[in-house]
Amino acid sequence: MDSLGNLKRSHYCGDLRMENLNEEVTLMGWVQKSRDLGPLIFVDLRDNKGITQIVFRKEDNEELYEKAKTLKSEYVIAVTGKVFERESKNKDIPTGDIEIISNELRILDTANTPKIYIKDDDNVSEEMRLKYRYLDLRKPQMQHNMRMRAEISKAFRDFLYDNNFLEVETPFLGKPTPEGARDYVVPSRVNKNLFYALPQSPQLFKQMLMVSGMDRYYPIVKCFRDEDLRANRQPEFTQVDIEMSFVNMDDVIAMNEKLLQYVFKRIKGIDLALPLNRMSYQEAMERFGSDKPDLRYGFEIKDMSQIVKLTDFELFSNSLAEGKQIRGINFNGLAQSYSRKQLDKLTKYMKGIGASGLIWLKLENDNTINSSINKALNEQFNEALLNLFDAKEDDLILVVIDKESKVLDYLGNLRVHVASENVQFKDDDFAITWIVDFPLFEYDEEEDRYVAKHHPFTHPVDEDIDKLTTNPHECRAKAYDIVINGDEIGGGSIRINNSELQNKMFDALSLTEDDINNKFGFFIEALKYGTPPHGGIAYGLDRFVMTMLNVNNIKDVIAFPKTQSATDPLTNAPTFITEQQMEELNIEFRDDSTI
Amino acid sequence: MDSLGNLKRSHYCGDLRMENLNEEVTLMGWVQKSRDLGPLIFVDLRDNKGITQIVFRKEDNEELYEKAKTLKSEYVIAVTGKVFERESKNKDIPTGDIEIISNELRILDTANTPKIYIKDDDNVSEEMRLKYRYLDLRKPQMQHNMRMRAEISKAFRDFLYDNNFLEVETPFLGKPTPEGARDYVVPSRVNKNLFYALPQSPQLFKQMLMVSGMDRYYPIVKCFRDEDLRANRQPEFTQVDIEMSFVNMDDVIAMNEKLLQYVFKRIKGIDLALPLNRMSYQEAMERFGSDKPDLRYGFEIKDMSQIVKLTDFELFSNSLAEGKQIRGINFNGLAQSYSRKQLDKLTKYMKGIGASGLIWLKLENDNTINSSINKALNEQFNEALLNLFDAKEDDLILVVIDKESKVLDYLGNLRVHVASENVQFKDDDFAITWIVDFPLFEYDEEEDRYVAKHHPFTHPVDEDIDKLTTNPHECRAKAYDIVINGDEIGGGSIRINNSELQNKMFDALSLTEDDINNKFGFFIEALKYGTPPHGGIAYGLDRFVMTMLNVNNIKDVIAFPKTQSATDPLTNAPTFITEQQMEELNIEFRDDSTI
Repeated sequence: MDSLGNLKRSHYCGDLRMENLNEEVTLMGWVQKSRDLGPLIFVDLRDNKGITQIVFRKEDNEELYEKAKTLKSEYVIAVTGKVFERESKNKDIPTGDIEIISNELRILDTANTPKIYIKDDDNVSEEMRLKYRYLDLRKPQMQHNMRMRAEISKAFRDFLYDNNFLEVETPFLGKPTPEGARDYVVPSRVNKNLFYALPQSPQLFKQMLMVSGMDRYYPIVKCFRDEDLRANRQPEFTQVDIEMSFVNMDDVIAMNEKLLQYVFKRIKGIDLALPLNRMSYQEAMERFGSDKPDLRYGFEIKDMSQIVKLTDFELFSNSLAEGKQIRGINFNGLAQSYSRKQLDKLTKYMKGIGASGLIWLKLENDNTINSSINKALNEQFNEALLNLFDAKEDDLILVVIDKESKVLDYLGNLRVHVASENVQFKDDDFAITWIVDFPLFEYDEEEDRYVAKHHPFTHPVDEDIDKLTTNPHECRAKAYDIVINGDEIGGGSIRINNSELQNKMFDALSLTEDDINNKFGFFIEALKYGTPPHGGIAYGLDRFVMTMLNVNNIKDVIAFPKTQSATDPLTNAPTFITEQQMEELNIEFRDDSTI
Repeated sequence: MDSLGNLKRSHYCGDLRMENLNEEVTLMGWVQKSRDLGPLIFVDLRDNKGITQIVFRKEDNEELYEKAKTLKSEYVIAVTGKVFERESKNKDIPTGDIEIISNELRILDTANTPKIYIKDDDNVSEEMRLKYRYLDLRKPQMQHNMRMRAEISKAFRDFLYDNNFLEVETPFLGKPTPEGARDYVVPSRVNKNLFYALPQSPQLFKQMLMVSGMDRYYPIVKCFRDEDLRANRQPEFTQVDIEMSFVNMDDVIAMNEKLLQYVFKRIKGIDLALPLNRMSYQEAMERFGSDKPDLRYGFEIKDMSQIVKLTDFELFSNSLAEGKQIRGINFNGLAQSYSRKQLDKLTKYMKGIGASGLIWLKLENDNTINSSINKALNEQFNEALLNLFDAKEDDLILVVIDKESKVLDYLGNLRVHVASENVQFKDDDFAITWIVDFPLFEYDEEEDRYVAKHHPFTHPVDEDIDKLTTNPHECRAKAYDIVINGDEIGGGSIRINNSELQNKMFDALSLTEDDINNKFGFFIEALKYGTPPHGGIAYGLDRFVMTMLNVNNIKDVIAFPKTQSATDPLTNAPTFITEQQMEELNIEFRDDSTI
């Protein structure tokens, strides 16, 4: 192996152009591929900025040529040489006009045959990609994703810094939350039988920083949640956490719109027009069946309860009598995209998510309606139907019947599902909206009481404060989510900042004094010494990066992610610890068998 | 309580000057103090930018005046009014020339009497400061420290970003280190009986990122170490972690000197002259008895083994015969500062750290020597002594006798101790040096083998590679620490990047194949696929901030620190978890009693 010595890299492998002709340069990187063409050896040299073609000529230097012959894929080399114009140019890469005729080669490290190929379209299992993550990360697409993630973080930081937000670090070794659900806990060695918990969010600390007069705060911080993992969830995730004092909801939203405008411009070159769209929770649910509607397409939900009265179809009348709702979506132009077989598949999908079935109506070429409920059709109903859905030839109307609490959710799912099968999304199409006026409470059937939809420190909408105990279900929160392309990218609220209102809130939640003290006594105490009006937002950075890059797999925007079972195939974490460690922690297993 | 409504803050409390006279402004903040002077009420209003005096005049608005009368310390208020020139100006604060005559007051929150006073010199216990941290953080000094910490982080980030370093996040839920010493571990719920560990440093991940071609990497990241805490240690600490590919030691040092130059200029306005001082480990030990010498003062160690031969004092001759060393320090000008009693105290201090005793020699006014070993003195010895130490009237020479491995350490401690009692440090006096040429190994008496002084991936100095197995104690590492004012602020090394050399290293460490695989098998595997020459450094951010701010207590640069027993008096972490959680984790205590 050769030593690097004092050799200096003069350029990255993506840097050189025609204007560098005849320069003597030194490049360093990995052998992407090597071709032996008799008296010439061509090497594609790769670093994190690109690829440059290197040529070793037998006629120039036979010793060098013989050395170059030993090069294999992924060897690490340093090459010095002169920049020449290529005879046959490669229009696919930015350095394709030039090549380096080498006069010096150092082999800095050899390489075993890589376990996975270093190219974007390599079709290997996720397990292999994670086990050999250091090879997977060499792929141009992963290099790009990691670079963009860093750029996005930097853009957030620069804007927040320029707007007087103070980066403050909050503790990782925190207090377990009282119910403890989803906490990762850390046994303490020096404080016997006690545990820390890793933060699910810095929520209480950031509010205490507002109590402490920090005025504006942010970190970009890891948070942890030990839940059974779904696709696109990770046990540790990154949050851009923002909190401001002396603000109302419009102030927070305005600041965050400027932030988003800055980030979109800097990262994507896109000018966001402000103010962004705002939609109430109720409107989002009624029109799109979701509190995170994807607004890149229409397919809005319509209530059919009036028009079904125009037919005496029993399913309709019975359903209404049972208090159910009948709602549907016009999937414009998709009638021919769904054959009988595909509609059966769609019905199966709907049953899979809990719906009792799916009714379809197609507008055929000749303006007749073909439907799974042909018996229900009559002239009046048909006309009302076409009116309600503004339906035209080749439209497909899909209808769901269920309880109010379910029908919108089912249709919201159907809407996204059908769109994912039929809508072609453009890379730079971002449909952004705020969702506001969330309900303050939701009813917990198990506990038979109202619980906070966000958390018990969320400020009610001012007009609803009088209804806290009398009509809790009507109370709205000063809470807001930012939704991009159907993903909730961030969410936050204005917090309660005086104990009078806080106590009303606890009453509405039927919390006893003991509950309160046990759950967040230290925080209630903190609120007693002069708390400014404050509020904030938290962005999910992983999800934000996915959205900006149009990436569907969260593992493609994280350097070393975990599998869906929260393991790391690269290091084999989690793993055993020693008996001695267990003893120091004063713990033992209840059941010694492993799974 | 009044609502903030749509009222907007126009200025911070530190903003207003004479040029704002007659402007209508709105300020928001906390009541620092309120004085009732009959028809006038004066309020000092505080936010995180400063203090402004507010005046409520009975003659202007009696209702407003009465409301202002109810204000107490730490109430949170919004005030609108006009800027006037003060009659009696306060030269102590930047806003002291003006005051606001208020015409509107909103009380946004009341406050209980604060448990600690909001002023810098408040003399409360550390326990109280941490329990009411949100009040403690209101103090101007803590606000300043937090702001400077954020500024320093931002300076690091900006420089690194501008120099092509990529911020990459590495996992917090990692693999326990094999010996497990000092790991905080996290039991996995879904992977029964297995544990994650919180990172003591991202060392292996950052090296794998170099293997993956990331080229230059950094994060500012929390690390964790479960050790018995000493003062100025925290269980979680923040590291600026930097790694570069295709570099040698001089490249890393040069980049970091530019980084330090940038940070010192931006934060302190100080121009660092480059290159910075470099000193070998051996020189640092011999001259200053420490590998992190404080170079703001002299007090260098001298070897007396030659000159003691000029006297027949038995303690000297016997000590040399036993193979001990005799070394001393001239504490210039301090003879009169140390009375007999104080010298006894110093001797006691030395015995406390393990020394067998302390010999002192004072140069009196009349050029005679007064000493604890007057019997040893003679003309020749005295002359040699004065020469060796370049000693003058009123100098104090302190001498320690011990084994080579101890004597320098004792004198290094003595040097710092005496300096701390006698040297007045200036705020902006920064003595910076690199320490290089560290030993590669140190001998572990317990294990009876050489162990790596840094870690087994540290690259040896090239000339010493041949001595790895034959003369390990002579081998030096390509390792470097950056030392400022006697604190190790950062340290790093060039890493081994090929398996040939790595295997030699393992041989020298007497590691078996099993050891190697068990300890870092996945990492050794990673090194096999083409590893670039690489190296880096990690800065301790907490310590860096302390140094920049001349703060002695690490808790003063961390928003929510832990006590020395790793507890948080504010939240009461660590604490119990529920039986249900213990069961889900499949663990129970060996001994149920708590301590």
